[in-house]
Order: sequence, then C-alpha cells, then structure tokens
Amino acid sequence: MGGVVVQNIERADPDVVAGLGECGVATVHEAQGRKGMLASYMRPIYSGARLAASAVTISAPPGDNWMVHVAIEQVKAGDILVLAPTSPCEDGYFGDLLATSMQARGGVGLIIDAGVRDVRDLTTMNFPVWSKAVFAQGTVKETVGSVNVPVVCAGALVNPGDVIVADDDGVCVVRREEAAAVLEAARKREAAEEDKRKRLAAGELGLDIYKMRERLAERGLKYV
Amino acid sequence: MGGVVVQNIERADPDVVAGLGECGVATVHEAQGRKGMLASYMRPIYSGARLAASAVTISAPPGDNWMVHVAIEQVKAGDILVLAPTSPCEDGYFGDLLATSMQARGGVGLIIDAGVRDVRDLTTMNFPVWSKAVFAQGTVKETVGSVNVPVVCAGALVNPGDVIVADDDGVCVVRREEAAAVLEAARKREAAEEDKRKRLAAGELGLDIYKMRERLAERGLKYV
Amino acid sequence: MGGVVVQNIERADPDVVAGLGECGVATVHEAQGRKGMLASYMRPIYSGARLAASAVTISAPPGDNWMVHVAIEQVKAGDILVLAPTSPCEDGYFGDLLATSMQARGGVGLIIDAGVRDVRDLTTMNFPVWSKAVFAQGTVKETVGSVNVPVVCAGALVNPGDVIVADDDGVCVVRREEAAAVLEAARKREAAEEDKRKRLAAGELGLDIYKMRERLAERGLKYV
Amino acid sequence: MGGVVVQNIERADPDVVAGLGECGVATVHEAQGRKGMLASYMRPIYSGARLAASAVTISAPPGDNWMVHVAIEQVKAGDILVLAPTSPCEDGYFGDLLATSMQARGGVGLIIDAGVRDVRDLTTMNFPVWSKAVFAQGTVKETVGSVNVPVVCAGALVNPGDVIVADDDGVCVVRREEAAAVLEAARKREAAEEDKRKRLAAGELGLDIYKMRERLAERGLKYV
Amino acid sequence: MGGVVVQNIERADPDVVAGLGECGVATVHEAQGRKGMLASYMRPIYSGARLAASAVTISAPPGDNWMVHVAIEQVKAGDILVLAPTSPCEDGYFGDLLATSMQARGGVGLIIDAGVRDVRDLTTMNFPVWSKAVFAQGTVKETVGSVNVPVVCAGALVNPGDVIVADDDGVCVVRREEAAAVLEAARKREAAEEDKRKRLAAGELGLDIYKMRERLAERGLKYV
Amino acid sequence: MGGVVVQNIERADPDVVAGLGECGVATVHEAQGRKGMLASYMRPIYSGARLAASAVTISAPPGDNWMVHVAIEQVKAGDILVLAPTSPCEDGYFGDLLATSMQARGGVGLIIDAGVRDVRDLTTMNFPVWSKAVFAQGTVKETVGSVNVPVVCAGALVNPGDVIVADDDGVCVVRREEAAAVLEAARKREAAEEDKRKRLAAGELGLDIYKMRERLAERGLKYV
Repeated sequence: MGGVVVQNIERADPDVVAGLGECGVATVHEAQGRKGMLASYMRPIYSGARLAASAVTISAPPGDNWMVHVAIEQVKAGDILVLAPTSPCEDGYFGDLLATSMQARGGVGLIIDAGVRDVRDLTTMNFPVWSKAVFAQGTVKETVGSVNVPVVCAGALVNPGDVIVADDDGVCVVRREEAAAVLEAARKREAAEEDKRKRLAAGELGLDIYKMRERLAERGLKYV
Repeated sequence: MGGVVVQNIERADPDVVAGLGECGVATVHEAQGRKGMLASYMRPIYSGARLAASAVTISAPPGDNWMVHVAIEQVKAGDILVLAPTSPCEDGYFGDLLATSMQARGGVGLIIDAGVRDVRDLTTMNFPVWSKAVFAQGTVKETVGSVNVPVVCAGALVNPGDVIVADDDGVCVVRREEAAAVLEAARKREAAEEDKRKRLAAGELGLDIYKMRERLAERGLKYV
Repeated sequence: MGGVVVQNIERADPDVVAGLGECGVATVHEAQGRKGMLASYMRPIYSGARLAASAVTISAPPGDNWMVHVAIEQVKAGDILVLAPTSPCEDGYFGDLLATSMQARGGVGLIIDAGVRDVRDLTTMNFPVWSKAVFAQGTVKETVGSVNVPVVCAGALVNPGDVIVADDDGVCVVRREEAAAVLEAARKREAAEEDKRKRLAAGELGLDIYKMRERLAERGLKYV
Repeated sequence: MGGVVVQNIERADPDVVAGLGECGVATVHEAQGRKGMLASYMRPIYSGARLAASAVTISAPPGDNWMVHVAIEQVKAGDILVLAPTSPCEDGYFGDLLATSMQARGGVGLIIDAGVRDVRDLTTMNFPVWSKAVFAQGTVKETVGSVNVPVVCAGALVNPGDVIVADDDGVCVVRREEAAAVLEAARKREAAEEDKRKRLAAGELGLDIYKMRERLAERGLKYV
Repeated sequence: MGGVVVQNIERADPDVVAGLGECGVATVHEAQGRKGMLASYMRPIYSGARLAASAVTISAPPGDNWMVHVAIEQVKAGDILVLAPTSPCEDGYFGDLLATSMQARGGVGLIIDAGVRDVRDLTTMNFPVWSKAVFAQGTVKETVGSVNVPVVCAGALVNPGDVIVADDDGVCVVRREEAAAVLEAARKREAAEEDKRKRLAAGELGLDIYKMRERLAERGLKYV
Repeated sequence: MGGVVVQNIERADPDVVAGLGECGVATVHEAQGRKGMLASYMRPIYSGARLAASAVTISAPPGDNWMVHVAIEQVKAGDILVLAPTSPCEDGYFGDLLATSMQARGGVGLIIDAGVRDVRDLTTMNFPVWSKAVFAQGTVKETVGSVNVPVVCAGALVNPGDVIVADDDGVCVVRREEAAAVLEAARKREAAEEDKRKRLAAGELGLDIYKMRERLAERGLKYV
C-alpha cells in the first residue's frame, strides 16, 4: 500500500507558461473551450497574485503532510505544488517553513484542496496560495502518499507537468501538451477583447456588437 | 417558453436613493423592520464599497449570461443589475467587458446570486459587485430569460425599480414605494444612535441606557 | 428556564496571555498538542489582527442579542467576548455601538459563531472580530441566555477565563490552567523553528533535517 | 414592529388543486414553464407522500414558533402551512402536537424552511412534511411574526392561497390565479408523455422521437 | 503526544437510562431546558431506531480508526460509542466487523461525527448509527487518539458516561449527574402533553389552551 | 466548441463486473488501495440497490440534458450512465422517460453529480440512481457536450468503460484495466473478513486479533 514518487516529469516550455500567466485565468479558461477550472471554493490567501507554473502533484492522506516534504525535493524553478487529499480535509498542511523551503528551490506557490496556515507570513514572503481553507489545524507525518501522479484537485484532473494558471478569479489547469495551442488562442482572444472593450466603452451595446437581436427574437424574447 | 423584457419601470426618487446609500445596510434594514436582507453569502468583491441604486432585474438560466447583454440596454444612470439564476449556479456570468458597458451607460454595480470574474479589473474600475462566488467558469448564450420581472435573489424578493442598498455588511432591498418612508426612519435611527454612541463611549452600559435590568429579572435572569 | 450570569471568573496571568498572543495561533495550537482550534469557518473581519485575551462567554438564543449587553458589564480590561448561539445562526448580533461599549470597558475583541455587522466601522475602530458570517440581519431582545458558563463555540469547548488566541490563521482556545505551560512549550517551538527556517532557506531539505528518508522507505515509499 | 394576521385569503378551486396533486411536481413545474421550485434541500420526512394544497403562510423569527399556533386558527380543510423563518434556522418548530391540531382542522401538511421533529409520530399520523432539517432543537414563544403575508420560502415566493404541489421530487408553488391554466397544460403534458413512454419502452430513441439529430449536427456535435 | 485511555468511568443508573430512551429525544431535550442537541446533520442510517445508552467517547485523528478498536475493549453492556474526529472528516471509520465486535460485548450503537459504511449489513444487524455521512472511504491505523476523555461531537460536549438519547429526531446528550432529574421532568412533560393532545385533537386551539391571545395583542399582533 | 461522441469503447469482462458487484463498494474500495470513491454526497434514491456496471460517460453543461439522449444510443446491456456537469448543478437531468429508454436498451442505472426526478417511478421501475440531489427542476436542450470522454464526477476521474460499483455505502470507480486484479484482491479480502467476523462475534477483540497492543504502546498510548 506504499506510495510512489515519480522523479522525472516533463514540463511545458517556460515561455509558454509565462505567456499563459500574463493572459490570466478567465481568458485561458475560455481559450481552451471553457474547461479546466478548479472548484470555486479555491481562493487566494491575498488579492492580486497572478501566476502560471508547472504542477508538481501530491496525493496525501487527510491530516498528514508528510508527502509535502517529499514533493519539495522534486520541485524545480518555476514549479507549483498541487496537493489533493485522498478524502476531504481542511487541515493546515503548509506554513511558512515549507514556503521557505519552496522558495529556496525556486518553487513559486501552492494549490491545495485543504487548508494552509501562517498566511500573514506567506503574504509577507510573497508566496501565493490558493486553498479551500485558511486553518491552523496541524497535521501528522505517519502515512505515505504519492508525488507526481495524476490527481483530482478541487474537482479537476491535474497531471504532473500540467500548467496551473491562477489569479483572483480562481485556478485553471491547462494540459501540458495543449499549452502552446491554448496560449495562441488566448492571445487572439485578448486582441479581440481589446477592440470590443473600446466599442463598449464608447456606448455601443453588446446586443449590436455581437448581432444578437435577431437570434433573440427567434428564441422568443418579447419586449413589452 | 420565451422570455420577456419589461422596458419601462418606475424608479425611486434619486435623492431618496442617495440618502439610503448614506445610511448603509444595517441602519436601513433595521429602519424597515428587520427585513429585506439578501442571504449572508452575498459578499463584495472588494472592501469599502457602499451604494444605493435602482434595480434592473435579470432572471437567467444556469450558466447562460445572454440576458445580461439584454438587460444592459435597459439600464439608466444610477441603476444596478440584480441577477438571479433560475437554479443555483456559481458560474462567472459577468466580467470586465460587461462592466465597461455598464459604466458607459451609467450603471453603478451588480448584485448576482452566482459568480463574477475579472475581479482585479473590476476593482481597478471601481465597479462594485456583490456575489455568491468569484469564479472564472464561463457561460453560454443559448437560452432566453427575462429582464425587469420580479425575481427572488439570494432569498429575497426584488422587484424592478426597488432600491438596492449594499455595503460591507451585505445587501438589502427596499421596496420602491416604501423608500421615502424608510429613509425617514433610517435618518431618525441614525440620530438616536449618535447619542447612544457618546454615552456608551463614556462608559455607560446598554443595560442602563436601555433600562433592561428590570425586564431581565422578570424573564428570570439570575446573577451568581 | 431563566439564564445565569456568573460574575466572578478567574483569568490567566496577563503576561502569559500577552505571550501567547505573540506566538500566534499556529504555534500555540501545536504547542498544546494540536488541539483547541475553533472551526475553520471562523474568519477575521480584517487581515492582520492578532491577539490573546481572556474569554467572557455568552450562550445566546438564535437571533437574540440581549445577553451581549449583559455580558459587557462583566468585561474587564483585556477580555474578549465569545458568543455561541444555542442553535446555528448567522444573524448580526454585534455592531459598532456594542464595540464602542466594549472599548470603553477595555474589551479587546469578539469571537462569534454567528454574524457581525458594521464591519467597516469596526475596522476603523481597530476592533477585531472573528465570526462565521458578516451579515446585517438584526436581532431581538426577548429571551435570556447565560454569561460566563462553559460554551461550545464553533466546535470547541470554551470555559470562562480560558485564553483565546486569534489571528489570520483562525482561533484557538487554551485552558486557563494550562496557559503558562503552553506558553513555555510555544516559546521552545519558536526557537526550534528559527533554526530550521535558516537551514531551509539555505536549501537544505526537510527530508534531511528531520531525517525522514529511512522511515519513508520503511513505510513503503518508492521512487521511480 | 408587531406582526399581521390576514384572516381572509382566496384559495384556488378545490378540483384544480386536486388535479395538480395527481400530476405531481415534475409535471406541474414543467407545465408552468420550469418555474416555482423551492430549493432542492426541501425533503420529505417519509417517502411516497404526494399532495397539492392551498398555502397558509407564516413569517416567523428564528427559533420562535409562536406564529404556528396563530396560523393554525386560519387553516381550513385542504390547507397546508408554509413557514419561512426571517433568517436561516434549522430548529424544530413543529411536532406531533401541532400536527394533531392541524389534522383536527383539516390541514394536510407542512412546508418549512427550517426543522421539524417527532417525525416518527408524524409518519404514523400520515402527516407529511417537507423541511430543510429534521431536528429536535426546541423553540420559544416570545416574538410575533406574520400570517398570510407573501413569504420567500426556500428561495421561492409563496403568496397566501397559492397552490403547493409536493412529492418525493420536491416542492413546487403555483400561483393561485394561474392554477387552472397550469393544470390544463399539465394534463396535456401527461398525455403526450404517455405516448412517448410507449415508444421509448419499445426501443425507439429520443434522438429520433424528438428529431434531434439534425440540430445536434448544426451545433457541432461530432461522432468519432 | 500520545493518547490516553480512561478505563474506569461512571455510568448513570440503567433504569434511568432506559427511561430516557422511552421518552425520546424531543421530550428529553425540552425537559432539560432545550439543551444538549448534537448538530442537525447527525442522521440515523435507518428509520425507527430509538435508544438511550452510556457514552464511551473516542477522540480520533481524521481518517484513522485505530482508537475504535481500543475503545471497544472499554465497552460494557448498554454502552454506545461516541466518536469525534480532531478535525472535520467524513471517512468511513466503522463497518460491520466492528459492529459485530460491539454486539459481542453488549454495545448498542454508534454516534459518529464522521462517516460509517456497510450500512446495509448494519441495518440487518439492527445496529443503529447516527452519523454525519455514509461513506465507504477507508481509514488507516497509524496515529493514536484518546478514549473516555471529554469530546465535542457535532457541536455538543460529551463526557464519558453521559447519557446519549437518539431517535429519528437526532441525538441529545444528558449529563450523567443530571440524568435522574431530567427523566423526572421528561415524565411530567409527557403527562402534560397527553392531555393537550386530546384537547387539540378535539379541535381546541393552542391559542386558547395556552392562553396566548392577550400576550400576542400586547406584543402588537394585529388581525386584518 | 462542439462536443464529441466516442462510439466504440472497451468494457471489462462481464464476469469480472458481476463479481465486483457482489463484493460491494467498501470491499472493492479497500481492495484497490483505498481509492476510487466518489464524494460522500452521492446518495442512492432508494436503499438496498447494489450493482456494478460499465460506465458510459457524459460531460454536460449545467441545466442542459441534451447529451443524455445522445448517450443512451451508446448504451449496451449492462452499462450505466455517469453524468458530470461542467459546473456544479442540482437540476433534474433525468426522469422516468429516460429511465424507460435506458431499460429498453439494457442500461442498468445512473450516476449523476447533479439532480434526478420522478424518483417514485424510478423506484417502482427498479432503476437505481446515485445522485447529488433529488430535484424536479427541469433542464433545456440547447448546448452540446460530450459522450464517452474522461470526466471528473463527484471528485473522481471516470473513463468510459471503467467499472462503477455502487451500493448504500456510495459509489466507487475501478479502472477497466485493473478490474480483474481488483476482483481477485476483493475476493481474498472477503475470505479474510469472514474469519475475523467469527472471531469478533465470539468476543475476541480486534486489539488481539490484529496484534495491536504492542504497536499502540510504542506510539505512546497510555491506560489510566
């Protein structure tokens, strides 16, 4: 029943990862066909953080953070930890000591479908976390889990090496092998939005810009 | 099964609306007899926003934001959108493009019993939103709903033209036809509170100010 | 069926209380054997508050804040109110007038397994509150409860005079009679953490610092 | 701040009410355009109950069941109580004594966005209840509310005299003045369903019966 | 950090325990002043079970059922296990093998603020369980907890030897030292209810039986 | 943005599927290393159902059941539908007409991370459903999704052709390619349990059968 640590994982091109981070969650999620969002309860511990990074995944028992230590050894510069407990848990698996260790190795953040603590210190350290809970409840180190296996985190499948995009709107996962294509689609979407933003700001209506009036009438919308 | 857009709605006197905004949610809600609060899960996307505005209501299918475009055409200066999905949903119906369109028409905010996205941009734009969720999950434009019909939003009935008062304490609805009377009661309440604040700050007890000791004894309270 | 007000309660040594506040929730909770946390839904109304204080407890009916007035008379400098409703409730039992009264008597905050309102004013007043909800929904004053009896608040037993430690990571209760010993253990823990922080910042791994590798292998962890 | 009891309310034609009860919730809800459902958390205390009845509404404070006694006096044969607390509550407002009183007056059930107790006795009495919770937590009789005013119950607006349809699929409200038309539409729907049921049972596909294939292809569905 | 097993606990008089079981949860809870209810989410795995029993308490880590084995050795005839996890958990700590062991020792049931599994077998065995969840998710045996220490279970303090009363209305705890007095009060309440039941069945109104009309008028209730 | 229907999927050996159904959820889940459980909120619409079947998966928009019709054409004898909405939804996607169609094609049940309706009819038809909600709220047929693609349903990854095991303890997924090995492990587990059941029934303690006493002492458990 022992766990597994996969030591060599592939990651997406760093330029692609960086580009996805610039686009942000809402745009990336639309660009890949409205998929990949983790559940809405995954919230940042402070406002304004925005990143994209390669996932080092952790499957951990409830209330046991042993595997976080194991996972940090697998982290390379630009990686983010993605922790999924094997059953629902809000305990505080991660705090400022582990964040110190992450930063020492170039790790850039944490996505955790559970709790985090020391959030004041993490904020000072500029170490962003998206979590289900902020909670000081401590954990033990008794049961092994696995690192760099596919996990379901907050309702989304995350493979090791997939790209995580996260900002104030939540967390989105992009498949590693689709990352370049999604970036291209996201860039196009951004350009198109810029034009629409100007027209809307000038007072034009979406009804006209998107030519919705006829289709609305066909679907039976009535003005009274 | 098509929807309806009501184009002419009555609104409360702008001075009354503004006055209610100055009083804030807690005072207004008390002044009208402890009624009108939307559910406590309706939270602002940033702290410190405070407003009162006339409701343009939207009844929308889950995961379909088509009616937001329709509703914006009905918005006049000082209006706020109030969106209720026809079944529970946390999708992000609204983002920075729609907010741009709202501001171009004089719209001042959004109350949504669902999700919102692009919250960093909305914050920069000073466009306040009270929502059930912050979530980038996108929506489609396939099914019609209705605009400016009565809706139940986060557990409260909102009629088109009702006054929405919102701040960090939540969201309260005031019936359009009761708005002037509620404002008057709220103003009186504020005056009375000012006096009490001074006495409490000076160390007097509420037990004495409100003459509660005798009634407490009657109800059986015992000091040991 | 009348309630009870216990007027004389014992409190912990003020220096011990102050010391626990400096250590913070995560450290104190670990130092006493990973116990005492209130539920994770207890969140501060603003970031950055951090305190320790002696509990004046309130058992109150749902939607009835009469006992808060009664409790404030029992508050001494350095105390914090801890309110537990007798059945689940999110109503706003407490606002800026009551906070004014608390501050006039030296009270330093509120822990409430229910709602709070006037949070903008409370923030300005530097009056910290950890609550289940922010909600303007008002309360009545019709039914008596009790003050300074043991209560279960957000899943944790709190006795009058117990020490409450609260910060951005949540709320923890320390038994009055264990407070000095817990402080001593917390101080030791802090010192040990400081050393580990330096080693981790220098790039050493927790796996090595805590000598975990052998035990992980024994438990069956495999590297592939 | 006192409450109101409206003593004379209009009810729908008893034959129409009975007819709606035969159709059941799913059919009635579809027949009126997919509207009127109370929230999904409203569950029956036992399986198999099915009814339609005229609503006598109650707006009650949290944890206070005084108004139930007041409301029962307003009940006529074939009526059902619909209780909405003024803020969320799960207390057990209603038990076997009140059910005895209801049955003595011809009342047929209870819809309550809160708790109910004595459910074993209620089951034996054949007194159906749809509630948010089963919970013995008791209530007080200290604060007045209102009877036969419009209420929002479990997210749906219910006016006194509206028709409540309830079964194992949940609870649906039909406006009194629309009840006859909804019944007619429901009857038609039932007839149409009977034909489809036979064809589906014979192995025909909905794709063919409803002629969906072409429209699916237009919307971009691809078979691989 | 090791746990503790308290081997000798006091229990209430078996006749008193049996008497409380006959009265049922709603009556017992009222008789002791509307206190002692565990949270409303504690539901029986099958309908119709009704019991009172002496509590053998378990404080267990999340996802670790080792202490259940330890606790069963402490069980005497007529005891019930009361398990509280140290942080929220829905894992299935208990199944048919442990129930077999319990029954072999005279144990009569389980109260668990977490999950249970093998519920079909437990139903066949007539082994009642009140739980937060039914869930097959398994647990480990790695971390010690404690047996027969005071625990907070589903929001209520339970001491070892306290009396648990449970039926379809939920779970209530009665202090061991108050059990006899509560039984007496419950018996009186039952007798009084019997008389009221007859009068209500005969069509008398609670408004008259309890003489509420005058007090309602005083509080401002108006009939229109 | 159109969807995809995968028409040819592999299924596990029918004898293996049947064997897993006999073992039940708790045993199968343990036998494969405590993995594969869908979330605990997935509950059966009636007690006593127990099955194993091959998954035909559906990814559907919120509030849109069009893809159910598409999926039924892909169903073969012994299959079960597994529906995951693309964002959280409790609408009633499925009722008795669709169940009639399923049974006509040999389909044996439904797993749905959303709502179901007509549950009285489904019970009569012996058509088992495990769902997040029972809710009559209707759906539309406007937006395409996909059939027989991998989905995350109630927190678990389900591939088309994976084996679903479901009973009163919840729902578990077994990878198609691991099904035979899991069955073998489950059979062994069952045999071992039978022996333990007898010893426990005879009064032996788990502490002795599993030789736990020494290890408990090592971990610091103290008897007092």
